[in-house]
Amino acid sequence: MTTVSQLESEIFQQPDLLARLLREERQTVMRIVETIRQRAPRFVVLVARGSSDNAARYGQYVFGAINGWSVALATPSLFTLYGKPPNMADALVIAISQSGQSPDIVSVIASGREQGALTIAVTNEPESPLANAAEYCLNLHAGQEFSVAATKTYTTSLMSLAMLSAALTGDSDRFAALETVPSWIEQILATADATLKSAERYRYMDACVVLSRGYNYATAFEIALKLKELTYVLAEPYSSADFKHGPVALVESGFPVLAVIPEGVVENELVEFTDRLKGRGAELIVASASARALAGAATPLPIPKGVPEWVSPLVSVVPGQLFALGLTLAKGYDPDNPRGIRKVTLTQ
Amino acid sequence: MTTVSQLESEIFQQPDLLARLLREERQTVMRIVETIRQRAPRFVVLVARGSSDNAARYGQYVFGAINGWSVALATPSLFTLYGKPPNMADALVIAISQSGQSPDIVSVIASGREQGALTIAVTNEPESPLANAAEYCLNLHAGQEFSVAATKTYTTSLMSLAMLSAALTGDSDRFAALETVPSWIEQILATADATLKSAERYRYMDACVVLSRGYNYATAFEIALKLKELTYVLAEPYSSADFKHGPVALVESGFPVLAVIPEGVVENELVEFTDRLKGRGAELIVASASARALAGAATPLPIPKGVPEWVSPLVSVVPGQLFALGLTLAKGYDPDNPRGIRKVTLTQ
Repeated sequence: MTTVSQLESEIFQQPDLLARLLREERQTVMRIVETIRQRAPRFVVLVARGSSDNAARYGQYVFGAINGWSVALATPSLFTLYGKPPNMADALVIAISQSGQSPDIVSVIASGREQGALTIAVTNEPESPLANAAEYCLNLHAGQEFSVAATKTYTTSLMSLAMLSAALTGDSDRFAALETVPSWIEQILATADATLKSAERYRYMDACVVLSRGYNYATAFEIALKLKELTYVLAEPYSSADFKHGPVALVESGFPVLAVIPEGVVENELVEFTDRLKGRGAELIVASASARALAGAATPLPIPKGVPEWVSPLVSVVPGQLFALGLTLAKGYDPDNPRGIRKVTLTQ
Repeated sequence: MTTVSQLESEIFQQPDLLARLLREERQTVMRIVETIRQRAPRFVVLVARGSSDNAARYGQYVFGAINGWSVALATPSLFTLYGKPPNMADALVIAISQSGQSPDIVSVIASGREQGALTIAVTNEPESPLANAAEYCLNLHAGQEFSVAATKTYTTSLMSLAMLSAALTGDSDRFAALETVPSWIEQILATADATLKSAERYRYMDACVVLSRGYNYATAFEIALKLKELTYVLAEPYSSADFKHGPVALVESGFPVLAVIPEGVVENELVEFTDRLKGRGAELIVASASARALAGAATPLPIPKGVPEWVSPLVSVVPGQLFALGLTLAKGYDPDNPRGIRKVTLTQ
């Protein structure tokens, strides 16, 4: 008998939990959208740490490209260390934290609310200090996350932001795309065994780079974080655009590059860039729906076709989660108890 | 006879160039400050790539903690890939680019200006497309930078932002601190040989982490980028606060951690954290003015005492530049011609 880790079980819960979130929080999202229309914030401030900070990175793209806001990712230490909260009176301030506990995140929301900003907590704990500090709370409804490495609270955080963005546009096609996310993830989970097994090839990998661009910049960060937390591989995330400014010098024969290549406007550029890296001897692990992108990979991680690019980060992170789990097992580590970290980090 | 690399010569030019910048651009800075007071922007958008993006990270802290603005680091692909520029009508938009050439950076400034935002180009090329697109230009006056790895255009970019921030406060003590920067850097350069030599110990280092927090978060990113560009070491930058959320799992016996520990509010926390990492077996390389911080280091890189924390990134990056140069030489690479990268990267 094989024992299934908490991590694996939580990865597999994601389709049901995302469907539940769409049902349970739709009304709250509509109420928040009404308030946003009334108060008309001029820009957005997102605040988060760890995996939630990667969700915030996704928020930067959806709220920017779809809703036309400039988005600042807040630097919580400005509030707690230097004691001078920036002006957020005209802002929509959104904090993302599964536990809702970290004092620095709470202090940004408290300061924003005091200044008159519209404040929202995105959290798995609707009774937490963060939820209490904010004017509105979006509950992730993800159930308790036992694994230290966040998976289901990451994708439900993305879904919360995507629902807010979609509702603001009033375009029902966008919600239809979100309703399809659970089934797209199901398709990936159906071949989970192959993905877990594909990680064996990387048993002795010490370092790698994780690349994407645009909406999936967030996905690159999140997959890299899972690899670091779980497998102790030095996995560095990069936008392909930034990677050309210097770090590309790192790539030599056999150097592993995990690329997330969604369908859409970044697809061609990313395929050309990974082809160039392959020409320099890079080993490619590619998560993509594109046959062309997968063809160049030593390890292809297929994603269903037809996922709109703005939604794709909810889907394309899943093969990365599975790959990280597979590598954890291949290296003989415990997926549920990574060394040196705890579930809740209280940053002052 | 030893040939001095362009890189080394450019590192040593920094004190003179920073003094020149303070003289030459003070009037332009005062004119910009007058316009800022008239137009009263509600938030700041910074846009940059590569080393300039690390300068923008510094801008996020100075404009936030000192001038009370929320600061968004723009995602240029929103403009060029997704074709929808966010609302920046109420913003101060500052682009940083030594060459002033990259089309995506230029497009952010052009879009901001079209929307009515106050736009500033910080560039070493006052006749570049970027300088022409912006309402104001701050010239770095750094002379041509021959080395692919940016050093003098990085510190002069920081100085430009610091001058703007200081002038906005109207506090003359702040300018006095900036006037002292060249002599602080001179003190570090006086022991450059020892720093270059100290890098020999890391001849066979493949990977490391570069940590700091607050204002010097930017310094951690910039030192890590120099190491990646020049030595092909997989050097990952981190805020110590984020590092506790997962990546700390990476640290095992002998794992090298380069920490930048300025005097000021982050000092105690960083010393305690590096002590904890040392307890887990980390090898510490520490750039600091604090005797306590230096005491725990296998390789101490001293910084002059009395540098105010907000100014310290202009000074504390210099031992990192020297260390990266020393390691480049120890590994037998050419400091002026890193593989795979060019001086100007044109990102669409």
